[in-house]
Amino acid sequence: MQLARVIGTVVATRKDENLHGTTLLLLQPLSADRAPAGRPLVAVDAVGAGAGEEVFFVRGREASFPFHPGEPPVDAGVVGIVDQWDSA
Amino acid sequence: MQLARVIGTVVATRKDENLHGTTLLLLQPLSADRAPAGRPLVAVDAVGAGAGEEVFFVRGREASFPFHPGEPPVDAGVVGIVDQWDSA
Amino acid sequence: MQLARVIGTVVATRKDENLHGTTLLLLQPLSADRAPAGRPLVAVDAVGAGAGEEVFFVRGREASFPFHPGEPPVDAGVVGIVDQWDSA
Amino acid sequence: MQLARVIGTVVATRKDENLHGTTLLLLQPLSADRAPAGRPLVAVDAVGAGAGEEVFFVRGREASFPFHPGEPPVDAGVVGIVDQWDSA
Amino acid sequence: MQLARVIGTVVATRKDENLHGTTLLLLQPLSADRAPAGRPLVAVDAVGAGAGEEVFFVRGREASFPFHPGEPPVDAGVVGIVDQWDSA
Repeated sequence: MQLARVIGTVVATRKDENLHGTTLLLLQPLSADRAPAGRPLVAVDAVGAGAGEEVFFVRGREASFPFHPGEPPVDAGVVGIVDQWDSA
Repeated sequence: MQLARVIGTVVATRKDENLHGTTLLLLQPLSADRAPAGRPLVAVDAVGAGAGEEVFFVRGREASFPFHPGEPPVDAGVVGIVDQWDSA
Repeated sequence: MQLARVIGTVVATRKDENLHGTTLLLLQPLSADRAPAGRPLVAVDAVGAGAGEEVFFVRGREASFPFHPGEPPVDAGVVGIVDQWDSA
Repeated sequence: MQLARVIGTVVATRKDENLHGTTLLLLQPLSADRAPAGRPLVAVDAVGAGAGEEVFFVRGREASFPFHPGEPPVDAGVVGIVDQWDSA
Repeated sequence: MQLARVIGTVVATRKDENLHGTTLLLLQPLSADRAPAGRPLVAVDAVGAGAGEEVFFVRGREASFPFHPGEPPVDAGVVGIVDQWDSA
């Protein structure tokens, strides 16, 4: 999983039917010291995250697990909102 | 998922039989400010996207989900046409 | 999927038994303007591609789909020979 | 798999329910000569690794295998603590 | 798949139980002209490869196929020892 900040949302009227009802977030991945690291991506929200929050997201088919038995065609999903992390 | 712009199409007469009838789009991934980000790729279309449109695509086996029970050998697929996104 | 040119073949006598009978191609990924993009990789051939041809290949488990019910341990496979592509 | 050093932990109260009870580690991937290589990531712990230890982790759905029949939505997991490695 | 050279082994006493009995190799990926390309990684051996040999490895869940019905949590595995490759 990777750390990220929620920087926005994506609106799409025409999309795969299994995506209806999902929230699509725009994420900026973060390094351990909270600096932007890599390009933003679109992820489905599974935990009610909102703009500005620090989260971690999962890549791959696992991103659809929280929607079981639904199978939205997603490859990235927010699965946790970070309270804090420490880095030695 | 990643944001991208449809920049073309790919024509292939000789291909895996499970790809027959699909539309193969050439995509340019985009950053949050709509600048090209990374190299173009080939994706199967699941939503009727056309040249010039901004879309988001999914990577991995999930790209074949919209074609269920078909199982085209694809690893990238357009699953939504973007109306807009906002980035804080 | 990604565009690529077939630049060679790989010969391996000692290999996983599920790879016997397959053809292993050496591919050079291409950008949209046909320039080399990224490092060469080894892919299994599913369409009869030969040296010099432009193809597109799929990554991941999907690469083994054309060999069903066989399950060769492959993560990249050529699934189409490109006639042409256009890029706006 | 990749070599890494455990550099911290991640605390998240609000997370997918299948993540409850897991330990989330912050990892710094390492090169063969133990230098940092690439950006830190979050991985679930399957072997009781602690801060400062050298480990190797697996990416993808395989990261959830040690939790079977549980299916936590994870894409990286520590599966071994390294005693030593040698590099010719 | 990618070309690589076996540059060492990894010793880990504490590891996931499904990894017991496997051999973990340290690999240096190679470019088509045999130069190091990218960072070393850890892969499970399925063909009896040894230090100094040129091999190709597979990424992803496919790396566990040679151990079926075992399901070791691995994401990279050596599936062939290269006799030669030619690059046009």
